[in-house]
Amino acid sequence: MAKTLIKNGTVVNATGTAQADVLIDGETIAAVLAPGSTLLGFDVERNVDTVLDAAGKYVIPGGVDAHTHMEMPFGGTNASDTFETGTRAAAWGGTTTIVDFAVQYPHESVLDRYGAWQEKAAGQCAIDYGFHQILSDVQPSSLTAMDELIDEGVTSFKLFMAYKGVFLSDDGQILRAFQKGAENGALMMMHAENGAVIDVLVEQALAAGNTSPLHHGLTRPWQAEEEATHRAIMIADLTGAPLYVVHVSAKQAVEQIAAARDRGSNVFGETCPQYLYLSLEDQLGASSEEWGSFEGAKWVCSTPLRSKAEGHQHHMWQALRTNDLQMVSTDHCPFCMRGQKDMGLNDFSRIPNGIGSVEHRMDLLYQGVVDGRITLPRWVEITSTTPARMFGMYGRKGVIQPGADGDVVIYDPAGHTSIGVGEGRSHHMAMDYSAWEGFEIAGHVDTVLSRGKVIVDETGYIGTKGDGRYVKRGLSQYLV
Amino acid sequence: MAKTLIKNGTVVNATGTAQADVLIDGETIAAVLAPGSTLLGFDVERNVDTVLDAAGKYVIPGGVDAHTHMEMPFGGTNASDTFETGTRAAAWGGTTTIVDFAVQYPHESVLDRYGAWQEKAAGQCAIDYGFHQILSDVQPSSLTAMDELIDEGVTSFKLFMAYKGVFLSDDGQILRAFQKGAENGALMMMHAENGAVIDVLVEQALAAGNTSPLHHGLTRPWQAEEEATHRAIMIADLTGAPLYVVHVSAKQAVEQIAAARDRGSNVFGETCPQYLYLSLEDQLGASSEEWGSFEGAKWVCSTPLRSKAEGHQHHMWQALRTNDLQMVSTDHCPFCMRGQKDMGLNDFSRIPNGIGSVEHRMDLLYQGVVDGRITLPRWVEITSTTPARMFGMYGRKGVIQPGADGDVVIYDPAGHTSIGVGEGRSHHMAMDYSAWEGFEIAGHVDTVLSRGKVIVDETGYIGTKGDGRYVKRGLSQYLV
Amino acid sequence: MAKTLIKNGTVVNATGTAQADVLIDGETIAAVLAPGSTLLGFDVERNVDTVLDAAGKYVIPGGVDAHTHMEMPFGGTNASDTFETGTRAAAWGGTTTIVDFAVQYPHESVLDRYGAWQEKAAGQCAIDYGFHQILSDVQPSSLTAMDELIDEGVTSFKLFMAYKGVFLSDDGQILRAFQKGAENGALMMMHAENGAVIDVLVEQALAAGNTSPLHHGLTRPWQAEEEATHRAIMIADLTGAPLYVVHVSAKQAVEQIAAARDRGSNVFGETCPQYLYLSLEDQLGASSEEWGSFEGAKWVCSTPLRSKAEGHQHHMWQALRTNDLQMVSTDHCPFCMRGQKDMGLNDFSRIPNGIGSVEHRMDLLYQGVVDGRITLPRWVEITSTTPARMFGMYGRKGVIQPGADGDVVIYDPAGHTSIGVGEGRSHHMAMDYSAWEGFEIAGHVDTVLSRGKVIVDETGYIGTKGDGRYVKRGLSQYLV
Amino acid sequence: MAKTLIKNGTVVNATGTAQADVLIDGETIAAVLAPGSTLLGFDVERNVDTVLDAAGKYVIPGGVDAHTHMEMPFGGTNASDTFETGTRAAAWGGTTTIVDFAVQYPHESVLDRYGAWQEKAAGQCAIDYGFHQILSDVQPSSLTAMDELIDEGVTSFKLFMAYKGVFLSDDGQILRAFQKGAENGALMMMHAENGAVIDVLVEQALAAGNTSPLHHGLTRPWQAEEEATHRAIMIADLTGAPLYVVHVSAKQAVEQIAAARDRGSNVFGETCPQYLYLSLEDQLGASSEEWGSFEGAKWVCSTPLRSKAEGHQHHMWQALRTNDLQMVSTDHCPFCMRGQKDMGLNDFSRIPNGIGSVEHRMDLLYQGVVDGRITLPRWVEITSTTPARMFGMYGRKGVIQPGADGDVVIYDPAGHTSIGVGEGRSHHMAMDYSAWEGFEIAGHVDTVLSRGKVIVDETGYIGTKGDGRYVKRGLSQYLV
Repeated sequence: MAKTLIKNGTVVNATGTAQADVLIDGETIAAVLAPGSTLLGFDVERNVDTVLDAAGKYVIPGGVDAHTHMEMPFGGTNASDTFETGTRAAAWGGTTTIVDFAVQYPHESVLDRYGAWQEKAAGQCAIDYGFHQILSDVQPSSLTAMDELIDEGVTSFKLFMAYKGVFLSDDGQILRAFQKGAENGALMMMHAENGAVIDVLVEQALAAGNTSPLHHGLTRPWQAEEEATHRAIMIADLTGAPLYVVHVSAKQAVEQIAAARDRGSNVFGETCPQYLYLSLEDQLGASSEEWGSFEGAKWVCSTPLRSKAEGHQHHMWQALRTNDLQMVSTDHCPFCMRGQKDMGLNDFSRIPNGIGSVEHRMDLLYQGVVDGRITLPRWVEITSTTPARMFGMYGRKGVIQPGADGDVVIYDPAGHTSIGVGEGRSHHMAMDYSAWEGFEIAGHVDTVLSRGKVIVDETGYIGTKGDGRYVKRGLSQYLV
Repeated sequence: MAKTLIKNGTVVNATGTAQADVLIDGETIAAVLAPGSTLLGFDVERNVDTVLDAAGKYVIPGGVDAHTHMEMPFGGTNASDTFETGTRAAAWGGTTTIVDFAVQYPHESVLDRYGAWQEKAAGQCAIDYGFHQILSDVQPSSLTAMDELIDEGVTSFKLFMAYKGVFLSDDGQILRAFQKGAENGALMMMHAENGAVIDVLVEQALAAGNTSPLHHGLTRPWQAEEEATHRAIMIADLTGAPLYVVHVSAKQAVEQIAAARDRGSNVFGETCPQYLYLSLEDQLGASSEEWGSFEGAKWVCSTPLRSKAEGHQHHMWQALRTNDLQMVSTDHCPFCMRGQKDMGLNDFSRIPNGIGSVEHRMDLLYQGVVDGRITLPRWVEITSTTPARMFGMYGRKGVIQPGADGDVVIYDPAGHTSIGVGEGRSHHMAMDYSAWEGFEIAGHVDTVLSRGKVIVDETGYIGTKGDGRYVKRGLSQYLV
Repeated sequence: MAKTLIKNGTVVNATGTAQADVLIDGETIAAVLAPGSTLLGFDVERNVDTVLDAAGKYVIPGGVDAHTHMEMPFGGTNASDTFETGTRAAAWGGTTTIVDFAVQYPHESVLDRYGAWQEKAAGQCAIDYGFHQILSDVQPSSLTAMDELIDEGVTSFKLFMAYKGVFLSDDGQILRAFQKGAENGALMMMHAENGAVIDVLVEQALAAGNTSPLHHGLTRPWQAEEEATHRAIMIADLTGAPLYVVHVSAKQAVEQIAAARDRGSNVFGETCPQYLYLSLEDQLGASSEEWGSFEGAKWVCSTPLRSKAEGHQHHMWQALRTNDLQMVSTDHCPFCMRGQKDMGLNDFSRIPNGIGSVEHRMDLLYQGVVDGRITLPRWVEITSTTPARMFGMYGRKGVIQPGADGDVVIYDPAGHTSIGVGEGRSHHMAMDYSAWEGFEIAGHVDTVLSRGKVIVDETGYIGTKGDGRYVKRGLSQYLV
Repeated sequence: MAKTLIKNGTVVNATGTAQADVLIDGETIAAVLAPGSTLLGFDVERNVDTVLDAAGKYVIPGGVDAHTHMEMPFGGTNASDTFETGTRAAAWGGTTTIVDFAVQYPHESVLDRYGAWQEKAAGQCAIDYGFHQILSDVQPSSLTAMDELIDEGVTSFKLFMAYKGVFLSDDGQILRAFQKGAENGALMMMHAENGAVIDVLVEQALAAGNTSPLHHGLTRPWQAEEEATHRAIMIADLTGAPLYVVHVSAKQAVEQIAAARDRGSNVFGETCPQYLYLSLEDQLGASSEEWGSFEGAKWVCSTPLRSKAEGHQHHMWQALRTNDLQMVSTDHCPFCMRGQKDMGLNDFSRIPNGIGSVEHRMDLLYQGVVDGRITLPRWVEITSTTPARMFGMYGRKGVIQPGADGDVVIYDPAGHTSIGVGEGRSHHMAMDYSAWEGFEIAGHVDTVLSRGKVIVDETGYIGTKGDGRYVKRGLSQYLV
């Protein structure tokens, strides 16, 4: 087995930094050592196969993106990244684990669909991957499937309060699933938007001839998110189930989560890079030669981009600082403009919902460190350590310590990253545009190791399809 | 320099655990290693002087007690523990660092008094120690002293909103000190009780013949704490200074701190073991053959014990879980019943305020793990990691990683500790009673290393007076 | 037209009292006069037909009960009071106006059902009556009917978030109705309980063999009420519609209403006598020789009685004091034990929901004055003035001033009322039991005038069926 | 005794309106009558001395301004309105009762100073007047004086948390006074600003050369008001005393008051016209030819004008709508620019604090009705009815009903009022400028009666010095 020494770097963990060398023996971290490459006179450097010099750089646990949708069927098309392309892009961006979603649609068997998703991913991935399970209708068999899936390492289940007929569970179904979660320890995940309200607003907007992408956001007002967030919290309160709210974008939803925390509940929330950097105003102002006002379709996602003037962006950063939001995932769900997003040229409600960010999360959040919004350890905590703890992978993922998987990223604060598809820019996701076109990051992912193997170096991606393995997760390690 | 290997243990850090060996070379940790005692074929165990087997035990960073008052002059007497006895007791209990308070009384020079406290401690301590500085009146020279003391490693300053004529600063003085803290980065600490209100209530109680210890608590109602906490928060808000509220005991005060956090402010709070376990009802019911109803004097401290029926205890545990309170210190300020506490036999207001707990904090909080109130990593976080980060010592203290001081505790979850002065019980603080008489802990401090030296082993304390050194602290590493 | 002088009484209005005589000329109040019965030398007393001496008594505007369900079909039976018996009982109790509910069930025509209700009531009533309209499914025709009904004097519309298949509107339907309310000024009323959650809890309770009446309350937890209240508030916020939450019983629901008020919204709430005086504990403890533990069926109503230990009762009184709740209605919906409530002998979910109180509201709230919970003017405000303002009848109803209808009650604070069906007690509602058995009131309704005609005097009810007329209401006069 | 009939008007009370005639016999209202001027055939109009036709106009209870400072010594000068000029100006503006403040400065006898103030006012006033008592240091004799003053009709006592050495009470003194208030039922009034904090900020501003009037506002930030408001609320909570916070200007202070209300406490607040219409931004922008940037001195008052951009103005109106603030007073405390305000030409802290508004309150708030901010009944409630209830005068003041004093204003909604000292404008206060220059009101005070005597008619003020009498007040009628 290959032995690798990462020397001279600054190891960053969730609570602080250390000047330390990291020794990886085979797939796992064997030691974290005081710098100098000798141990009690033993010359470590001479006894390894590979030495990576991280002088002046950060050595961090590989990113864990707990919310991706590779190849997901949605609105008559599929998310444009396959498990192969999407995980490869993730690797480029310093993410070494994803947790994707197996999808059960109404009347399907949960276990069947779970199996189908395992097949889709098998042998395709550049990095390690796990699954959450989406439940679209909560049949009695779904509840027993929850128990079985926990044994399979699927310990978190996502429900939707929107998308009637496709994903939506009614409150009684949510209650039953949450009761099961309270019983077996599964973490319940929620897409919290009031779909019934949104469906009416969408219908009314279209009837009024308001068909452009901007109306996607206008028909999904913060009240719909805040309301559903509060409702999910109260059902969790009734049952005792732990709750994790996905893609929180409204400050009022954060306030509901914080209030639940202050009452002592196991209620958590993630936000996504788009809610930290992009806004409804950006979408409103967007218009390109090619797409005209349909340009805004690039940022059609749900929950939607929110008004910067109303303070949502500012509040998301603040909540990350104070741990009112616990972590950042991408909700990576990419669609191309041509052939996918343009299905909604004359009807915003037909635009596939989603933004591709799996490659950029580590960079975009590092920029938050540069901008003084979060600290360096907090960067690692919200992008790696907490995701690993939240979803039962800590120890193997999310930390640099002996016994952990050799998922390590060397990040260069003196580097630079120019995001986009334009001249001098790049990304590696299967998208014909970038939601992040023109973003400049004062840092760069230098080297990425996945279970001890260098898969990204200065020449780019050097791994092999199928490097990534399925991660059987345990119960959440973040509950109290 | 001595080389020590702690093998086979479960290393606990703030975010989780690892099966790992810890190598200490001289005073600092040299490596954290996968278990097995070999590294790339090199036999580590054979190359060290001492091997400690921690199989089945927890290996944790030594406790950091950020709030002690050794030998403190108060009410015409001195806290009964000297720096020698107090730090020795701390060592017995798994605490390897204290931060004590240098005291400036009105009209004194801050720097002079700081110097005096350094002299008191020099050469006396069993473990490492740092200082906060108490400011009792905020003279212009006090503000310049704050800058100078930061260079000395004193980066936190405590003010009082109670104890008129002794410690109390008025709100204008507080404002000036906070402005300085906002400027130089010092963390402002506050004893938050409305002294003016309390003084009237005490006077009225005594005038009404209510002289027994119970009236100590009744004349310091939660409103006085909540009010002062809110006031301190607002002055911090005006200035931008970071604020740390000491010995929080009222749930309403926690709510003020949580609200400030939710607004994005650098406002933090500690609680103490007494507010987690003891109550006004205990004090009310206490009566011994020896002391009669004066028995209650054993638990006279400020802030006071609060009513369990009102839910304060429950709320303190909850706040520790959700990080609405960030850490636990002892406010160790011991006085003997005979010759000290009994000065207030006929007047509760003359009872020296304080409880001795420096020896028991790690045990009492570990019991919280056993009781399911907090998780194992949270135990380490609130007793060691966060205190170190909060007060600018992280990296050297509060974590097990290369480069850190060899302050390590081996804690045995299969051990047992019986606290008290009675038959079959013990403590090592210079007190003729225990505030914790009869408490049984399902765990035990086995071995304590301070900067690589074993100072407590199965035979008890084996260190030497003066082992402990002064810790020059940096600015808080917990601010965002 | 008859002329009546009420002399020597203490007139009580919503803001205070006056020593004044009240002259009624025909159906309306002609003057409020300084006591003495002369005006500029003109002898008023000599020029009237009837003189009522109210010395030592309160002269108040007749009670307005804005929430009754006479003859309502529910669960396969009808509420036991007809418009005739129910309004007569109301008159006995000092209530001179009711607002009942016309009911549209799913797929029915709103206007048809409204017409049917007008027919039911026509010529039957002892006192004046108006109608709210219940909307059970919000069809396009329902929205246009809302406009038409406003012209008919029906200016408030009630929706339900519970009772699937019978009354429940989904959130999209609620949104559409609220949009209409925002447009035409109608006040939207809401039964706020999460029916989907409750239906599951009921199903589970029954499946577990928990069939007794107590489980009615246990399967309708406060979370279900708080959640729905918040949801209704957010939909109102989205649309700008004014919202009135009926039968609020949970303190957490009050907090949501208060929070909305503090944000400046037109959100209001009523509570009912049962939530002020009765509790889940009463229901739990109830067991009679005749009915055994089914005795609790007497108090099965929705929202349910709540736990006194949790503080709901106390909070309802408090909220009435501070105007966090604006008024008190009865939700009068009586069913007999024999032949009606007993339909649920083996299944609590089949017990018709409702309590009869229309006769006792004025007395029960007056007892709150005697007990020091509310002031005398507040009694009049929450039982008469605010209901009249809230529902667009003020000027004619709810106040003693010239031009108002001669709906006046003479209330004797030296009188006494013993409520119940037992020996020495009485009520006049068509019920075979009393939910208020044994309640003693330190006051008594002496005389009741409806539009100038004495319909209750010391001999009891002396009015005639059909005295009452339909009240065509205007828009709410309480909005800001 | 003169008999006056006001006919054909719309009588406005706190809960609504009535078409009614008002008969005043001597000093008191004898009857409120249905319009038409006959009663049971008796021709009222023929039997009175004076008939005032109010067709098309509002007939309202005379305004009650519960916060004025006539001739108050402040900063080495006296408020420029005497009791004579100030009450005359009040009459012009439709205010028929003021409650002024007797002032005790430190070391003075409360009763002596009260006597002095009675002498100042005796025989001088155009309208009725009462007194609150200011306590500047709370000596034991002050507490007994509180009991005695209640017998004199002084039932409310004002304390200050600012103005050290002049007015400020420390928290212990406040506690003692509040305890007395809880005992004898007096309403405790509070100037809630943290004086110690403000004094430092002022000193620092002046030291930095920031001497212009704008810095008055900048050195009295909202935090100082919010903090003190909360502190006063908590001391009230400790004692059970009812609390009334004067001149609330910060939205955060309103939130504290609302929260206390929602907890069920007797905590109330007034705001003033300046906080509804004027802002820090106005003050910042103000500069005149004559005064340059010192122009801003015209609006130097405490609490200060607040930032409109921060939403304070909007929130004050909102709080008036929802009754989170209960009433509006003026805090009338006028100073001339020349010879008074200009004492602070080079030092804003020497500018006498105060704005003159006693003449304009009724007009300025009526404009709020025109602008759709409050309803017509709410106008009467917050300017007359609630002030009368709050301060124990209701029945005689604040309402149009038999037995009430004949304090009646005929207000013309078709009239117009141009406020100011410029061409075509007017005011009648003893000030050489107007804080309200240029304000246009879509309404006009037509006629003012004080205890049955017309003192203002179309020709202007026609009353006589000394018409006004002292009002012996009872305890607050607003407590619950």
